[in-house]
Formats: sequence, C-alpha cells, structure tokens
Amino acid sequence: MTVEAFDAVDVIAAKRDGRTLRKEQIDWVIDAYTRGVVADEQMAALAMAIFINDMEPGEIADWTQAMIASGERMDFSSLSRPTSDKHSTGGVGDKITLPLAPLVAVFDVAVPQLSGRGLGHTGGTLDKLESIPGWQAGLSNKAILDQLEDLGAVICAAGSGLAPADKKLYALRDTTSTVDCIPLIASSIMSKKIAEGTQGLVLDVKVGSGAFMKDLSKAQKLARTMVDLGKAAGVKTSALLTDMSTPLGLTVGNALEVRESVEVLAGGGPSDVVDLTVALAEEMLRLAGKTDVDVRAALSDGRAMDVWKRMIRAQNGDPEAALPVAEHTEVVTAPESGVLSRLDALSVGVASWRLGAGRARKEDPVQDVAGIELHAKPGEAVTAGQPLMTLHTATPERFARAIESLADAVEIGGDLSSVSESIVLEKIT
Amino acid sequence: MTVEAFDAVDVIAAKRDGRTLRKEQIDWVIDAYTRGVVADEQMAALAMAIFINDMEPGEIADWTQAMIASGERMDFSSLSRPTSDKHSTGGVGDKITLPLAPLVAVFDVAVPQLSGRGLGHTGGTLDKLESIPGWQAGLSNKAILDQLEDLGAVICAAGSGLAPADKKLYALRDTTSTVDCIPLIASSIMSKKIAEGTQGLVLDVKVGSGAFMKDLSKAQKLARTMVDLGKAAGVKTSALLTDMSTPLGLTVGNALEVRESVEVLAGGGPSDVVDLTVALAEEMLRLAGKTDVDVRAALSDGRAMDVWKRMIRAQNGDPEAALPVAEHTEVVTAPESGVLSRLDALSVGVASWRLGAGRARKEDPVQDVAGIELHAKPGEAVTAGQPLMTLHTATPERFARAIESLADAVEIGGDLSSVSESIVLEKIT
Repeated sequence: MTVEAFDAVDVIAAKRDGRTLRKEQIDWVIDAYTRGVVADEQMAALAMAIFINDMEPGEIADWTQAMIASGERMDFSSLSRPTSDKHSTGGVGDKITLPLAPLVAVFDVAVPQLSGRGLGHTGGTLDKLESIPGWQAGLSNKAILDQLEDLGAVICAAGSGLAPADKKLYALRDTTSTVDCIPLIASSIMSKKIAEGTQGLVLDVKVGSGAFMKDLSKAQKLARTMVDLGKAAGVKTSALLTDMSTPLGLTVGNALEVRESVEVLAGGGPSDVVDLTVALAEEMLRLAGKTDVDVRAALSDGRAMDVWKRMIRAQNGDPEAALPVAEHTEVVTAPESGVLSRLDALSVGVASWRLGAGRARKEDPVQDVAGIELHAKPGEAVTAGQPLMTLHTATPERFARAIESLADAVEIGGDLSSVSESIVLEKIT
Repeated sequence: MTVEAFDAVDVIAAKRDGRTLRKEQIDWVIDAYTRGVVADEQMAALAMAIFINDMEPGEIADWTQAMIASGERMDFSSLSRPTSDKHSTGGVGDKITLPLAPLVAVFDVAVPQLSGRGLGHTGGTLDKLESIPGWQAGLSNKAILDQLEDLGAVICAAGSGLAPADKKLYALRDTTSTVDCIPLIASSIMSKKIAEGTQGLVLDVKVGSGAFMKDLSKAQKLARTMVDLGKAAGVKTSALLTDMSTPLGLTVGNALEVRESVEVLAGGGPSDVVDLTVALAEEMLRLAGKTDVDVRAALSDGRAMDVWKRMIRAQNGDPEAALPVAEHTEVVTAPESGVLSRLDALSVGVASWRLGAGRARKEDPVQDVAGIELHAKPGEAVTAGQPLMTLHTATPERFARAIESLADAVEIGGDLSSVSESIVLEKIT
C-alpha cells in the first residue's frame, strides 16, 4: 500500500477557501487522479473550486507541468528543420490547418499537427481530411518523424500517451460545467502542445459568437495565459486573436472545407481564409527564425500545393480524387434587399452540426458531405430572394431542424460597426 | 428511456454562476441523483458551487423538501401524546440524549430519537447505549410506535428509508470538502428530522473548538436557517446555542458517558450536563405545550430514572448490569498550580478517539470502555501534580498518540474571559 503524500480533501479545501495550491499539492493531485487514487467526484469538486476561485499564473504553470508529466513527451530535436505548430481554439468553418501546414513546410520549417477528435459544431481537422478518399489519420511516432523530415508537414491523430491526465480531466469537465475556465482551458491546450515537443507555437484564439470566448477581454486573458505558459516551458509562443463572429470562408462542413482549402492552395479561395492562413504562416515562420519570406508567393506558384499533395499521399489519400458531394441540398434565400450586416457564426455552426457535419457524442459518425455553403458575407449587398446559403446533407430529414437554428442567423440593413475589417484583431507575444 | 426534465450541466452552471436554483431544478437534481442519473462527480461539482456561492433561504427550503421527498416519512399522529425531539450538531462528551429522552417522557410527551451512526471524535448515541449489556439499537417502525405510546421515549437506529438522498450526499460531501456549508448542513439535518415526523424539535447548536461551528455568528446563522426550515415544514422548532469550548460533563467515551448519564438520572451528575439536560427538556416541553413543569424534580425524585430503566429493558438491555470498565488507565497530571483556564474540547475529543472511543471509517468498531475522565474543569483551581484526566482504553499501545493530542489541551493561569458562565449561550426561536 502506497502512503499518499497528500489528502485530496485538504487540497480541495485549500482551493475552495481561495488559497494558492503549492507545486507539491498540484503534482500529487494530478498524478493521483491519473492513478485513480483521487476519485472523479473529488476532481470535479476541485475543478469547480478552480472555476470559481481562479488560479494564480504560477499555479497554472504548475498544473500544466503536472499534466505534461502524466504522460510521454515527443522530441523533434533530431529533425534537420526547426518545428513550428499552430493551435486554434476552434471556430465555425476553421479549415486553416489544411492549407497552413503545407504552406509553412515550403520554407523548411516542420509542422507537427497532432490533433484530437473533440466534440464541436463541425467535425475536427481529422474529420475534414477523412473526407479525402483513402486518407488515414493514424501514424506511428516513427512515421510522424519520417514524414516531418521528408515533407515538413504532418497532420495526424495524437497518440493517447500525451498528457493522459488532461484526457481524463477534459471528459470530466464536460459533464460537470467546468469547461469555460481560463486556467483549465489554458493548461489543457498547452500541456498537449508542450508534450508534443514543438519548438514554436502560434495560438489562434478566436473571438466572437462562434468561438469559445465571446468577448475580446476574455480572449486576451486566455491568449496571454497560454503565451506565458509556452514561454515558461521553453516553447517560442505567440497568439493571434482572430474574428469568429461570422464563419471563416464560404464553407462549413468536412468535404466542403477541404474543397475550399484546396482552392486556397491553388492560389484562390476567400480572402479571409487566405489572409488568416498567411498571417499564421508568417508568425509560425517568424518564431522559427524565418522572416522576409514571401508566403503568398508559395500559394500562387503551386509550391504549397505540391507539399499538400505529397502529404495527402503519404497518408494513403488521393489528392486528385473527387471529393464526396451531398445528394440533398436546400437553398436559403435573402428575405429582403440591403447590406448583409450579420451572418452569425454560432447559428451557422449549429445548423451545420444538425445537418450531420459534427457529432453530439464522441462515438457518433460524421457525414463527409454535410455542411453549408455561404453565398454572401457580412458587408456585402444582397437582393431579396437571392441565395444566401446552400445546405448540404445525406439525410434530408435533417433540413427542418437545421433551418430552425438559422432563424436569427441573418440580419440585413443593420449596424455594420461590428463587421470586422480584418480577420486578425490583435497579436500577443 | 426516460426523458429527463433538466440537464445536470445546466443546473450546475446556474449555481456556478451564482444564480438561484428554481424549485423544479432542485426537485429534479435531487431525484435524479437518488436514481443515479446525476453522477457523483456532477453532484460534487454542484455541492462545491453551493459551498462557495451559497443558497437563498427559499432554495435551502426547496432542497430540504426534495431530500425529504426522496424517501419515506414517519407519522406519529396516531399517538395519544404529542412528540418533541432534539437534535445536537455534535460535541465532545455530549451524552445529553440519554437522560433527556426519559426526562421529557415523564411529562407525557413522546421523544422519538432516531439516530444515525456518524463519524466523530467520540461514538454516537447508539454506540454509547450499546455499552449497556444486551441493549439493541434496531427496532421496527411498529415497535417504535408501540414503545413511544407505552413509555414515551425511544432511542434507536434510524431506518435507511428516511431521506436516502441525504445519505448519499452526506457520504459524497465527506470526501469532496463540502461538509462545512450551512445550506448543506441545515438541509441534511432538517430533512431527516422532518421526515421522522416529530411535531416539535429543539436544536442544540454547539459553538466552540469541539463543535462543527467554531464561532458564534456562524452558529447563529446555522440555527436560524434550521429553525426557519422546521417552521416552514410545520414543525415547531427552536434552537439553543450551547458552549462546546470544553467537553460537556466529566466524561468522554461510550460506557463512561452512560455512567455519567445514569448519575444525572439519579439526581446527581456534573452541573453543566444537568443544566443543559434541563434547559433542553424545558424547551422541548414548551414546544409541546407544557409550561410550568418542574423538570428538575423529575430527576431528583426518580421518575426520569424509572422511564430510563423501562426504556433500556424494552430494547433488551439490563439497566442494572455493571458497565464495562477499561483494563488500562493512565493519569495526566497538572503541570503547574493555578486556575485551569482552558481544557480544549477538540483536543480531548481527538485523544478519546485515539484511545478507541470513536471510529475513523464507518465500518470500524468502537471500544465501549475507551475514553477520558476529567478531574477538573475550566475555572477550577488545580495544584501541580494533581490528576487532571484519566485516560481509559482496552489497548494500551494507544496511550502515546492520545497523550500527543493533549499537548496543547490544557492551560493554567491564562485568560478566564472565554470560560463560559452558562452552558446555554443563546436561544433562537
């Protein structure tokens, strides 16, 4: 029988009473939770106390380190290129990883994108790529290293060995209303990214209705917390705060987003997607010591597309194969003429999810073909009766509920002051 | 598959964000927790949110009613006598129930003392009575009613059917640092007492080092909350705030406390025990409509002792049998001469527990014989070397750790202002 260094009841009581947890207490409680000595109900009580009473920066750093220590760490120091990664807090139509990883790789910086499969309005990055015929998400650690050395970019499923404490805690937070809490969000994201072993990290922190953080000041605080955690752990880290009041680009849904990503890699695509891809690429390259590079040129001259195709093929995908297309579509038209002043990201995200693009439970399948195409974006003039969106699904009985969730999504002729002029709102270094 | 009326995540989030829970939410969450639909980790998160963000009086009343509704209710309306009960929040040397129940019964008021077996420094009321040879704690509901009609007093184990939600929540609170919280304490106590069906209830709310509530203002708040809950449920309820800075009486431990209780029933006993017994009896009788009764006379003339003996015999006990006595004793002497200014209740309680009088886990046995006799109380002059306490145990290897916990228990020649002149500090009606 192991004699435990601390008693969970005392650690919980300390945070309950607003005290600062000591490093030894945090190390113990995370380790004991991973081992099952601290029970779920005890961690739930502690998480709620953290949610309400907050944590000091030092506590968050200790918590993050303890979660990293709960599992294995990857090491990319053997690569001949520097590594630089990106993490997005998630938004509607956020397909940026797809064009971004090959684009950065063009400049001899390796991008190790190890993704989890979260819940969300739309599928995750892996779900999007899985709409490409043949593509496989799973790679061994050796295959990841080989592909990074060879191509400079890999997007694949994260192994379960990274920060297992976070995995357990994340599932618990979901059922105990302790998700929306900066110390727990920041430590969850950063423990996985630091354990992943990247040398540089750019955080894309979304702000707006379709994002986790609805207002700028909370997003700033989250970004600052994560940037400081990264730096303290020796990872070059910065953050872009980016607009998520309206969907990113003109597509939401798995195959639809792959199609748009390929347009960007071919030198086209919607300007907000291109702008954000370029801004993130420049920041990732800057962290890797590469400034004065012409990122946009690598999109227009086909170099990024070349890496994309090799990357897809390396994971058994066929980049030339036709993407799946929905059998059933339905068009939503503009109810009046005027300037589109709002196209709400959250409503579009929920509608896409109801069409089948996202999952409610981890074990649910997603539809490759489901989603929404947008035909206008805020700031553009529309005419009554013109198509605003096309809804796609394999299961047409889903249209009714999807359209329900779009009831308040559209505003025409309203205040334009909240329409963001630039996708990047602020940079935090 | 039942469609649930609410989602636990929303109920938790409401309290987390400081909102008032609605009656329907409370009814659902308690019922769903009892059914196992709301998981332990969800209730733990909710309990922590309640601990930190508190509850409105109306919420506490709803929570209490929901816990009552989780189980059966007893009904004493068929009795020819009114019922009046007492509940103590628990203290060191608190044996008052033993002389109190038969004393009140003398005046044709029935006392239904249904006790649980809690954890504690000393054993509970049932543990004390079980040191009487032959005495049985378990009675059927019919036997309880018959004994109340016949003798007017019963002290027995509470059935598991009363407020099962409380039973589950109480165990959870113990491991999640959510015990010391007025809304949860008050609703736990009152749900059981209201479900028990008593018509009158006097609460003995202890204040001081040996009590749950260390300071007067918190004890006042707890008492006020419970009195209001009782009245709202139609139970005549009042509370006495009583001193628990030093042990009650001169004995702590199971058989030792029975011995002292019998002394009180014989017209003797320490004055604080007698005073508190009389004060509580007068209050219980007042709630049952009996004023102008000479309670002390029923102790001195043997009427209370008669009921006691019949009550013990009715549960197979032998009131004339010798009580068990410890084989091993050790005397603690006064380190100097002067007036004893402090004899700390908590330290004495812990020492008694370490001698074997209480349990650490529910399944642990207790020693009948273990405990502590006091030879002086605060305010009395002592001489260096005179016996202050005698420690009793069946297992002499326990002496060392018990004596350790008494290291700071005794103060001689200090400030006397905290020595309470009267055992009853305040009455709340």
